[in-house]
Amino acid sequence: MYGAGDVRIENRPDPTIQQPTDAVVRTVLSCVCGSDLWPYKSMPATGTGRPMGHEFLGVVEDTGSDVSGVRTGDLVVAPFTYCDNTCDHCARGLHFSCRQGGRYGFDGVDGGQGEAVRVPQADGTLVRLPVAADAALLPSLLALSDVMTTGHHGAVTAGVGHGDDVLVIGDGAVGLCAVIAARRRGAERIILMGRHAARTDLGRDFGATDVVAERGEEGIARVRDLTGGDGVEKVIEAVGTRQTLQTALGSVIDGGTISRLGVPQYEEGPVGPSMIMRNLTLTGGASPARAYIDELLPDILDGTIEPGRVFDKSFSLDGTPDAYRAMADRRVLKALLAL
Amino acid sequence: MYGAGDVRIENRPDPTIQQPTDAVVRTVLSCVCGSDLWPYKSMPATGTGRPMGHEFLGVVEDTGSDVSGVRTGDLVVAPFTYCDNTCDHCARGLHFSCRQGGRYGFDGVDGGQGEAVRVPQADGTLVRLPVAADAALLPSLLALSDVMTTGHHGAVTAGVGHGDDVLVIGDGAVGLCAVIAARRRGAERIILMGRHAARTDLGRDFGATDVVAERGEEGIARVRDLTGGDGVEKVIEAVGTRQTLQTALGSVIDGGTISRLGVPQYEEGPVGPSMIMRNLTLTGGASPARAYIDELLPDILDGTIEPGRVFDKSFSLDGTPDAYRAMADRRVLKALLAL
Repeated sequence: MYGAGDVRIENRPDPTIQQPTDAVVRTVLSCVCGSDLWPYKSMPATGTGRPMGHEFLGVVEDTGSDVSGVRTGDLVVAPFTYCDNTCDHCARGLHFSCRQGGRYGFDGVDGGQGEAVRVPQADGTLVRLPVAADAALLPSLLALSDVMTTGHHGAVTAGVGHGDDVLVIGDGAVGLCAVIAARRRGAERIILMGRHAARTDLGRDFGATDVVAERGEEGIARVRDLTGGDGVEKVIEAVGTRQTLQTALGSVIDGGTISRLGVPQYEEGPVGPSMIMRNLTLTGGASPARAYIDELLPDILDGTIEPGRVFDKSFSLDGTPDAYRAMADRRVLKALLAL
Repeated sequence: MYGAGDVRIENRPDPTIQQPTDAVVRTVLSCVCGSDLWPYKSMPATGTGRPMGHEFLGVVEDTGSDVSGVRTGDLVVAPFTYCDNTCDHCARGLHFSCRQGGRYGFDGVDGGQGEAVRVPQADGTLVRLPVAADAALLPSLLALSDVMTTGHHGAVTAGVGHGDDVLVIGDGAVGLCAVIAARRRGAERIILMGRHAARTDLGRDFGATDVVAERGEEGIARVRDLTGGDGVEKVIEAVGTRQTLQTALGSVIDGGTISRLGVPQYEEGPVGPSMIMRNLTLTGGASPARAYIDELLPDILDGTIEPGRVFDKSFSLDGTPDAYRAMADRRVLKALLAL
């Protein structure tokens, strides 16, 4: 990406092992993330460009001398940041803060939207997938790299459990995966706030019991109507604008929890006296995807959950600029890149 | 209080039973709250004045026909808001949000800084104290009405448990009670941030293992030095300014929790991307004091905790204006009013 709206396909040097803990993975599937759309809309033009993509699944092509957990030929999925999975932060379930971790597309590491990636900390990062490289499950397994594990993080940090009422704000891929996660953890009522019928229909398939298409004050009033007047105990905010935070604050019952998943597109938020008087909790964050893959993988393998259904259109690598455009125009929910 | 700096002693009508659920309590001890100092510093002048005080302990003088839990002659403590202790909010531990609850000094209810108070929802609100009205324990029992139960709420909502490292920001009465609460819940290291030696010395008596007198960036650096460089997992913010929130954010480790107890003196706070990237949780709020009294009372009766030590000067009712001035000038930590 060279700037807002400027995504180009270029030849880059083939990645090679640089550290004994590296692996090189040849990409089979990748995709475009909702968070990729923020720079796509606002990134200042640069002369050098920035490799993009942090969700991918592929075949190990080479490994460094210290790598023992994966080997050449293994089909693996990569969580959206790499990590050693052993440091004190990882041990606390904070893989995003890993001492040796980092992000794809930065610091000399390739982006996932490309033919191959050098993955640092391969043993800590990569998870072997016990399926063939042409399995129908691959899109759902790719979702483990970010959207499904992120939606799960929302449900975990909001404390969603059996019989709960949950509001999910946002019908993007993360919001829809949060619906899957809330359902999977036993939520009874799942209200999905979104206005794109195709997406909210998929949300209903995933377990949403109610859909609220209204926004702002109207949306808040609808949620309160649906929940006896006082709002919902657990809110998963999967958009990241100031307006959706306000909607969350208006929809949550006193004593409730708002878990934020979208990267906030604001620096300051309304966390003054009323949040204290109402005993509200604001939590959430960047998912420790690596930590959740082990838990969610069996449910994908046996078909209990199908997060791959969020991919509603497939593009070739050359079609990546079209994929960005289609997602930015909201013609496509989540674009799969088949390498 | 007629405005900033303008506290007057006046004769008001003796309170009487108005609802069958009321009790009239003759005050034995009351006190001035740190939160009373906010209007003392900034309240616009009014012609009518506002009854003040929400912390008191006294003897039941009369009860309405529906009151069965307390009777005339009982020594009782009142939590800082009244509540029915039976509604759905109370059942969820949100007594501050009680459906039939309210605040002293508003809606025709007297303030606690006076000779007697009509207490609505007496059965839900008042807790009988199994001691004589002249017991040496009374100041500690009075602390149950607010500061001790509020400090406890900080420790509960921050999730403080055995072996934890905790930072308490603020050496006011609530901060000091948060130290008691953190120690009581088994915290191993308790860092108290405050610069008034007499108060931080009391904090050490209460269980603080370290005192940080520095503020702002310097204070953050000291806390990080004390905790291996990365900060503290649990922070109790017992002041309520924007600066102390910034200090909390700077002192907390990734994945940590900040519990706010002071009423925020700001409307907007820095809850943008870095809070998400660091997986921070912001929680806390107005304590359900009533819910905690049953748990804390035995520890006061047997001397395990002595929150009454925060009262460092006693005033008569007529001395109330002096009590406010002394607290506002920080000459007195917490002023006891002996009726």
